[in-house]
Amino acid sequence: MSMRSPARPFAPADLESFVARCLRACGLPPADAEKVSILMIKSDLRGADGHGIFRLPQYCKRIRSGGINVRPNIRVISERKGQALIDGDNAMGHLVVARAAEIAIAKAREAGVAWVGVRASNHAGCAAVYAKMPLAHDMIGLYIAMGNANHVPPWGGTEMLLSTNPIAIAVPSGRRPPVVLDMATTTAAYGKIKLALQRGEQMPVGWMVDRNGRPLTDPARASEGFLLPIGGPKGYGLALMFGLLAGTLNGAKFGRSLVDFNADQTTPTNTGQLMVAVDVAAFMDIATFKSEVDRVWEEMKSSPTMPGFDEVRLPGERSSEIEAKRSRAGIPIGPELAQQLNRLAEELGVKPLQ
Amino acid sequence: MSMRSPARPFAPADLESFVARCLRACGLPPADAEKVSILMIKSDLRGADGHGIFRLPQYCKRIRSGGINVRPNIRVISERKGQALIDGDNAMGHLVVARAAEIAIAKAREAGVAWVGVRASNHAGCAAVYAKMPLAHDMIGLYIAMGNANHVPPWGGTEMLLSTNPIAIAVPSGRRPPVVLDMATTTAAYGKIKLALQRGEQMPVGWMVDRNGRPLTDPARASEGFLLPIGGPKGYGLALMFGLLAGTLNGAKFGRSLVDFNADQTTPTNTGQLMVAVDVAAFMDIATFKSEVDRVWEEMKSSPTMPGFDEVRLPGERSSEIEAKRSRAGIPIGPELAQQLNRLAEELGVKPLQ
Repeated sequence: MSMRSPARPFAPADLESFVARCLRACGLPPADAEKVSILMIKSDLRGADGHGIFRLPQYCKRIRSGGINVRPNIRVISERKGQALIDGDNAMGHLVVARAAEIAIAKAREAGVAWVGVRASNHAGCAAVYAKMPLAHDMIGLYIAMGNANHVPPWGGTEMLLSTNPIAIAVPSGRRPPVVLDMATTTAAYGKIKLALQRGEQMPVGWMVDRNGRPLTDPARASEGFLLPIGGPKGYGLALMFGLLAGTLNGAKFGRSLVDFNADQTTPTNTGQLMVAVDVAAFMDIATFKSEVDRVWEEMKSSPTMPGFDEVRLPGERSSEIEAKRSRAGIPIGPELAQQLNRLAEELGVKPLQ
Repeated sequence: MSMRSPARPFAPADLESFVARCLRACGLPPADAEKVSILMIKSDLRGADGHGIFRLPQYCKRIRSGGINVRPNIRVISERKGQALIDGDNAMGHLVVARAAEIAIAKAREAGVAWVGVRASNHAGCAAVYAKMPLAHDMIGLYIAMGNANHVPPWGGTEMLLSTNPIAIAVPSGRRPPVVLDMATTTAAYGKIKLALQRGEQMPVGWMVDRNGRPLTDPARASEGFLLPIGGPKGYGLALMFGLLAGTLNGAKFGRSLVDFNADQTTPTNTGQLMVAVDVAAFMDIATFKSEVDRVWEEMKSSPTMPGFDEVRLPGERSSEIEAKRSRAGIPIGPELAQQLNRLAEELGVKPLQ
C-alpha cells in the first residue's frame, strides 16, 4: 500500500486556465497559450497522464531557455493535392501538429486522402489527441511522431539510436466509442517511466533491460538501460520505418543526431511528425461504414474470454471511459505533481493551482 | 540433423514457367498466368518461402473449385485525386494488388500521396513484393493485407476473430539496399507454421498458445491454438486497425465472417488490401533523401552489438542478400515441395519441374 496522500480532482477548465497562464507568463501569445492548454489537458482527460499537464514544467523550462519559438511562423513549404510539408518554425508541437491535422482534413475532403508531414516541430503530447481530430469530419486519422530522446537500440545493438516513435490511429464508429489505438513501438512509453519515477513505483520486468540484456526495474536507473521494442526485431523495424516516414522524409532529425530534450533545453529539436486523414465518404457511405465498425466492436466485445481476463477490450475503450469520467468528476492530480506545478506557478509569478 | 534429402536449386525463370503453365492449365489467360507467376516467384527470390511457389497447389485447387475468377473485370469503383477503391472481381490477388500499386503510383505522381483500397481480392503472396513496387519510381510504398484465415483472438479472448494482417513498408535508398519491413502483427506468420509442418519441424515457444494460454510447439496441432500478437494488446490493436483500414473501409470481409481459405475452396474470400504510394519528390530532393536513408542505414549498421549478436541488421537486409544469391544460384526447392509440385503438374497434364 502506498503511504502517499491521495490525488485530488481538478476541473478540466481550471487546469486549462492554469496551463494557459503559465504559458502566457513564458511569453506565448494568449491565443496560442489557450490552444496549447486545451490540447495538453486533452491528454489528461484520456488518462495519458505522462503526456499532459505533467509535462508543463519541462515545456516551460524549455521555453524560458530559448529552446522553443514563442512567435513562430508555422507555414506550408511544399504541397500537392493530397500532401503537404509544414515547417513548424520551432513552435510548441501542439500548435504545429494541430495545424497539420487541419490541413490534412481540408485536403482529404478533396483528394480523399491527405498526408501532411511536419519538420521543426516539438513534443506535442498524447498521439491519440491528434489522430482523433479527423473523427469529427467523418474521417479516419493516423498520426506518427518522432520521440524526443533515443531510448531504443536497433535490434541486437546497444547504442540508443531510436526513440519510442508512437503511432495512433482513430476510426469513427456509430453507437460505440471510436476505435482509437495509441501505442509506442516499445513495450512501455518513456512517459510511463517518468511517471513511475515520480510516483516512487518500480517498473515491471519487460519494460527495460540494461546494456547486458538483464531486466531493469528501478526507474531511477533508467539512464543505465534501454526500452524494449514490441516483438523484438518487429518493433525495431516499426520504430525505424516510422523514423524514416515522420523524420527523414520531412527533413526532421532521426538517429544519432536526435536532440535529447531531457538533457538539452536550448537546441531546436527539429521534431518530425506525420498526420494522415482519410475521408470515409470517398470509399463508402459513412453510415454504412460506422455500422460496420460497430459490428466489429460488438464481435470483439461479445467474444469469450481467456482465464484471467474479465472482458475483451477495444483499443481506446478504456480511454473513452476515463475521458467520460474525468470530464464529469475532474482530473486527479497527485500531491507530487501539484507541488511541482505550484512551484512552477510561483517561479512564473502566476496564480497557483489551489 | 535432418535426414531429409537436400533442397535442389531451380532457376527463377524455370519456376516462373512452371507456375505459368500450371495456371494456364487451370484456365488463366496466358498474360495473367505470366504476371502472377513472376509475382509469385518474387516471394521465393526474397526468401519468403511460405508465400511463393509453396502456395501454388492451394491456388490451383481453389481455381479449379471455382473459388477464383479467371476472367475478372478488375475495375476502379470510386476515386479522387489521392485515392481509389478497386473491385478485384474475385481475381487472383496478385493481379488485383499489382493493379492497385500501379494506380497508387500514377496518382501519387500528381497528388504527392495516393491510397488505393481493394475489395473482392484474394491472397497475393509476400507483402514486400507490393510495397517495393513504388521504389522504382522513387516513391515509398506501404501495403497492408487482410490475412485469409482467422488465427488470432482479440487480446484476452479465445475466439479467433483476427488474422495476422501483415504490413510492409519500403523506402528507397542510395548505395544501400532499400529498407523494407515486412511483418505479420503476430510473432510468427501462418505461412511459417505451414512450412514448419511441411518440413517436419517444431515451432519455438512464443509462436502459438493453446486455448488455455499454454505454449503450443507442434505445427500439426496448430488448429488447437492460436497465434500470439506482438506486444500483446499492441499487436492485437494493430491487427484490428489494419482490419478496419484494409478490410472494413474497402467493403471487404473482416471479423467473424472472414472466409477461411484453408477450409473453404469455393466461397469468394472478398479479401481486402491497401496500397499507399508516397512521392518523395513532393517532400524533398530525391538524391538528398536517398543519402539520408543511407546515413540512417550506416548509423544502425555500425553501432555496437549486444552479447549474442554478430551484427545489427536493417529491415530487408537479409531478404536483399537472399534475393541476390537466389537470382544467381537459383531458388532451393525441398524434396517434399518438389514432389507436391510434380504431382500437381501430373494432375494438370503439364510438363513437370524436372
